[in-house]
This record gives sequence, C-alpha cells and structure tokens, in this order.
Amino acid sequence: MTSLSKRSAVEPFHAMDVLAEATKRREAGYPVISMAVGQPSRPAPQAALEAARAALEHGRVGYTDALGTSSLRLAIAKHYVSRYGIEIEPRRIAVTTGSSAGFNLAFLALFDPGDCVAIARPGYPAYRNILAALGLEVIEVEADAESGFTLTPENLTAAERKAGRSLKGVLLASPANPTGTVTGKARLKALADYCREREIAFISDEIYHGLTFAGEETTALSVTDDAVIINSFSKYYCMTGWRIGWMVLPEDHVRGFERIAQSLYISPPELSQIAAEAALGAEAELDIYKASYATNRDLLLKRLPEMGLAIASPMDGAFYAYVDVSHFTNDSMAFARRMLAEINVAATPGFDFDPVEGNRTMRFSYAGSESDMVEAVERIARWLP
Amino acid sequence: MTSLSKRSAVEPFHAMDVLAEATKRREAGYPVISMAVGQPSRPAPQAALEAARAALEHGRVGYTDALGTSSLRLAIAKHYVSRYGIEIEPRRIAVTTGSSAGFNLAFLALFDPGDCVAIARPGYPAYRNILAALGLEVIEVEADAESGFTLTPENLTAAERKAGRSLKGVLLASPANPTGTVTGKARLKALADYCREREIAFISDEIYHGLTFAGEETTALSVTDDAVIINSFSKYYCMTGWRIGWMVLPEDHVRGFERIAQSLYISPPELSQIAAEAALGAEAELDIYKASYATNRDLLLKRLPEMGLAIASPMDGAFYAYVDVSHFTNDSMAFARRMLAEINVAATPGFDFDPVEGNRTMRFSYAGSESDMVEAVERIARWLP
Repeated sequence: MTSLSKRSAVEPFHAMDVLAEATKRREAGYPVISMAVGQPSRPAPQAALEAARAALEHGRVGYTDALGTSSLRLAIAKHYVSRYGIEIEPRRIAVTTGSSAGFNLAFLALFDPGDCVAIARPGYPAYRNILAALGLEVIEVEADAESGFTLTPENLTAAERKAGRSLKGVLLASPANPTGTVTGKARLKALADYCREREIAFISDEIYHGLTFAGEETTALSVTDDAVIINSFSKYYCMTGWRIGWMVLPEDHVRGFERIAQSLYISPPELSQIAAEAALGAEAELDIYKASYATNRDLLLKRLPEMGLAIASPMDGAFYAYVDVSHFTNDSMAFARRMLAEINVAATPGFDFDPVEGNRTMRFSYAGSESDMVEAVERIARWLP
Repeated sequence: MTSLSKRSAVEPFHAMDVLAEATKRREAGYPVISMAVGQPSRPAPQAALEAARAALEHGRVGYTDALGTSSLRLAIAKHYVSRYGIEIEPRRIAVTTGSSAGFNLAFLALFDPGDCVAIARPGYPAYRNILAALGLEVIEVEADAESGFTLTPENLTAAERKAGRSLKGVLLASPANPTGTVTGKARLKALADYCREREIAFISDEIYHGLTFAGEETTALSVTDDAVIINSFSKYYCMTGWRIGWMVLPEDHVRGFERIAQSLYISPPELSQIAAEAALGAEAELDIYKASYATNRDLLLKRLPEMGLAIASPMDGAFYAYVDVSHFTNDSMAFARRMLAEINVAATPGFDFDPVEGNRTMRFSYAGSESDMVEAVERIARWLP
C-alpha cells in the first residue's frame, strides 16, 4: 500500500466536517438548524432558476471556453459599471468554478513553492489549506482590534520583519469571514500602495460584496488595476451549490491564468454560468434576503451577548457572528460537537479560522431563515449553563 | 506590476484554444463542425435532465458533503456491482467536480514536489500540465506499437533507468485518449503488480469506460484494491458541462483526500450530482448514442486512410481517431488553424498529446452526430490536396 503525500496533511476544513455530521443527523430525522456553513437558506433568484430550466429544455450542457462564456464575461463587466461605476474589459473577467477555483488558480499563477503569502488571522481556513497544499509559506497576520481587524502596512511590515522574509503576496477579504470586517477605501488604497511599491501581488477577496451592513464597501478595482479580484455567486446571489464565481485580472495576467484553468478545470459548469448571468439582474429579489439577514444580525447582536457570548469582531458585513465562548469552554471543537449533539444547532469552531486562539471562539452563520435564527437562539439560551 | 509564477508557464491545452477559436467563429455565423474537444453532441440522458428540472422546482442548490451526497456515493457503489460485479464500500467513492478535480486531488494527495510520475506519450495533456503546475516531475513513456500503445513493466523499467529516478506514481488511461488503446486484464494486472511491488501509486483513468468497441474493458478494481480509480459522467453519460465525476479510493486514503477536497473544492455542484445519479440508470438511452459513435468510427476508419490520413493507433475505445498528417504537413498546429479557417472543421493538433512527435499528428473526436461526421469528412476530402 502506498502512502499519502506530506502535503496531504493539511488541516481539515472543520466547518465541512460539522456540515457532514449535521447532514447525517438531519438524514436520521433530527431537527438540525445549521449555522455552520456560510450559505443562504434561500434558493438562487427566480430568474436564475428560470434560465436554468429553459436551458434544460432545449440544449446540451457542454464545455465552454476555459474562462467562461463570452456573454457571462460581458454581463459581469457591465455589473462593474452599474454597481461600482468602473469600466473593465470583458476579457479581464475569468469565470471560475466558485471562488475556490479562483483561489487555487491565483495561488498557482502568482506564486512559486516557498513564496510567502500573508493572510489575516482569523480568516477563511481554505486560504491557509490551499496555500499549504501548494507548497507556499503562509504568514498569518493577527488582525485584532488594534489594526481594525484588517491587514495594514503596519502589521504587514511587522510580519515581514518577524518572518525575516519578504512577502510575495497579500490576500485580504472585505467584508471578511469570519470577523465581518469591512475595509474602507482609504485603508484599501494604503494596502494596495504598499503592495505595488514592493511588487507584492495583491489578491482582494470580494465574495461578500453586496452584504455590507455598516462601513464602506469598496472594490480594490477602485484603488488599483494590479490586484487580482476574486468574487462569487455563492453568497449575495445565493448560489453556493452551483459552484460559480469569477475573477477580475490585470490585463497581462489573463493568458497565464487561462493556460492553467484549461488543464485544471477545463471550464466552469455551463448551466451555472447560464443561471449566474440571469442572477446578475435579480438585485430586487436578493435585497429582500439581505434585509432578512439584517434582521438576523440585529437579533444576534442583541441576544448573543446577553447569553454571555460576546461578539468578538465588527460584524459589519458578510453574515457571520464571531463570538467569544471562553465563558463556557476552552475547547470550541468539543463545544460545537456537544451543541450539535444536544440541541441540534450546528456552528463552526473558531479553530477553523484561527489556529492560535480559535479554541475559545465560534462562528455562527446568520444566512438562514429568520424563524430558524429565532429558534436556534432559544435553544442555545436554554442550553447554556 | 507583479509577474506570474514560473509554474504558470505550463503549455496551453491546445484543444481548448481551438474550442475558443471555434466558438468565436460559430458566434460569427460560420458553419463550424467541432471535432476538437472530446464531448458528445448529445445532451445528458432524459432521466438526468428530468431529475435536474425536478430539483429546480422545489429546492435550494447548496453545498453537499465534500466527497458528495451519500445517495450518489451509494448509487455509484451499486453501479460497480451491476456493471463489473465488484462490491465496494460507498465510503470509498469520492464524487468530484469532473475528472479534472480527480486528477488534481490525486496528484496533491499522493505526491510531493519533485516526485516522478509516469504517463503515456501520446496522452491527455492535462495530466502533464497539472503535474507540472504542482511541481511534479513528469516522465513521458513512449507508448508505441511495440508496447501495444500502453504502459508496461518493460517500458516503465526502461523509463526509470533512463531517468535515473524511481517512480512514485504511474497513471494509465484505458480506453486511452487520444490513441483509443484498451488495456486488457492481463496487462493491467501486470502493471498493478509492478506498482505494488515497488510501492508506486497506481492511478487508473477509466473516464472512457462504456465506450469500448474492441478489446477487453477492465477496471483496475478487478486486479487491485490499491489503485486510485478516476472516472466521470462526461463521456459515456454525455455530461461534460455538468462537471461531475468520481474516484474510487483505497480505504485508508479516503480521509486524506477528503481533507484536501474540503478546502480546494468545498463540494461538487449539487444539481450535477442529482442529475448524475439519475444518469446511472439510463444505459438503454446511452447505448443508442454509443451505437452512433460506432457508425462514426466505421466511417473514419474507412475514409480517413483513403484520404491519406493514416490511423496512428488502435482506436479500440474512447471516441477519437488519432491520425498521421505527415503526408500534408510537418506543423499540425498550423494545419489545425488552416482547417478551421478554410473549411470550418475544428480538430486538435497532436502537439497537445505528444510534445515530441505531435507536430505530425491530429486528433479527431467522433462523438458528434452522424450527419456532422459525414459532412466533415466530405469537407476534408475536398480540401486536402
């Protein structure tokens, strides 16, 4: 029997393990409420479903160009005009199989093994895990109250000094998962300038755009043309399981990204591309969902601290409450397992997002229905000692 | 402006470039017949379309477990019983976002940078390109008439000696792209034994199973439990653009693969999983398509050599004619471009499959409709000098 590679020893994505456990319990008949995984409980917008249905009526679902259909790339380019007032060439748009493919492609196209890439801690665990699997060195920069829970020239400089290495890449999410931090235009520009001056590749994860409740939502495209922008239809557009996202690339990166995408992905799923194009026009419907996340957010902002679960970060955007559970446990993983087993509420242990201090935090997604949130909060209130 | 990584300098997947060019011409109104990309012109089976439509009626399309829904994993396990008489635990099935994800996951989970992996030349270009992007050393082993167009203990031993390195992995496709070679049970067992004795990971690409016209189609599972099997719904099941495939893993590899899949892919597309499960029961419909590929194959086997395009390899399985174009050109890439520009027939330059001798070969896919094949053959016959 052959053994697995050293690099296969990445951490599990604990939220996905919680999801698997929650799925098993739900299939066994338990009334599980999932706040573990970052996905809306609503289906894709009606227009998207309609477009997919129509495509199923008449046609073959086949490979498309590796960077997506020309019509979706054009529609996304138009979206930048209408939403941000920014004109970009459609050829700079690369449609991807979810933002997951965007990250993998960006890391492969921009970095060679051994290169250092900075991410915020706490942050999305797949960054760290993909970077590690690809042989890149992950520099986790503590994003705490002092730095406004984001990456700054100051904490990056300190991190470079501490590591004794120069950065090749910086990856920032705004709004951020799990902290909800929204990095405004001035800070984003300072970061982009820092990267440009040092020839550091800047990757801006904008997957939670459209879901900002406080603060100044800014695309990195408004402060630089050199960044790699990563986005997706999973969150605001409610299309997680369709696996469809996009990147905006610097002009002279397009062909390099395309070459890798051809072999690694062939093409993004065609039906999802058709549905996604229709979803771009569905803001009226999607903003109703957003309003209901706002209601959920208000509920959690009020009720969680009352129960002793202090909110640990801004919660300005995305749809997560990142809370401090240290009143109750020093082992968030065990806490998550018990909560699922005893009251059928699934949430994600902070260890996913923060290998250093995540033992005393948990992330609750509030992208579910309002009734589920009310019920979950009641169960947790009754359950906590 | 930052630059791209060294590893982004992989070869383009020329077939995808031809596809992009063909798409552009078709959108401009030219009567393009595509024999470039390996995809059936038929849609997914009716039952699959029906299942997708039903899912769109009632539900959300969300993340599933990283290795796929339990019901699809069970259905695939049952498929091994009914098709091959082989019992496997459903937990050994990993559903993937097409075989593309299967290869990427297998290479990451099994090999560390610098490891040597043998593939056949000519062979599927994405093997070489993904391996290179991941920092693995690709050993291309000439699979010619002498070795029966496949990998054998003899040519592997010779390749190891020549490279002065021991292999960590062997990847064989049967039926093979582009040669059509079907590797029978005895030869497959010899290969599996060779790998087991030397602790070499054996990856068996079975994506063209169901499309064997001559020879003995064999799954590596019938000769070993140690292989990683890669398969997909793209070819026999006509579901390319759905991006859905699967692996069968050795029992003790499952968790390692799952950990990587969680972060790199989150999950395969859910709607495609639902449709794929229904497709597994649609053999009656799919075998009609297969019969029409057989008709196309007969046509090409007869007509191409008459025009001076000699068939270069067995053509026993898959749906490709790999032909020698050296009577007409010493530059298959230019030949492909001219053929598309002048008679609107797209085919793939052999350089994709064989960096050494591909300048004088071309691959024609015969997965299109019978009328398209007849028309394409007529255009080529009139066009060739």
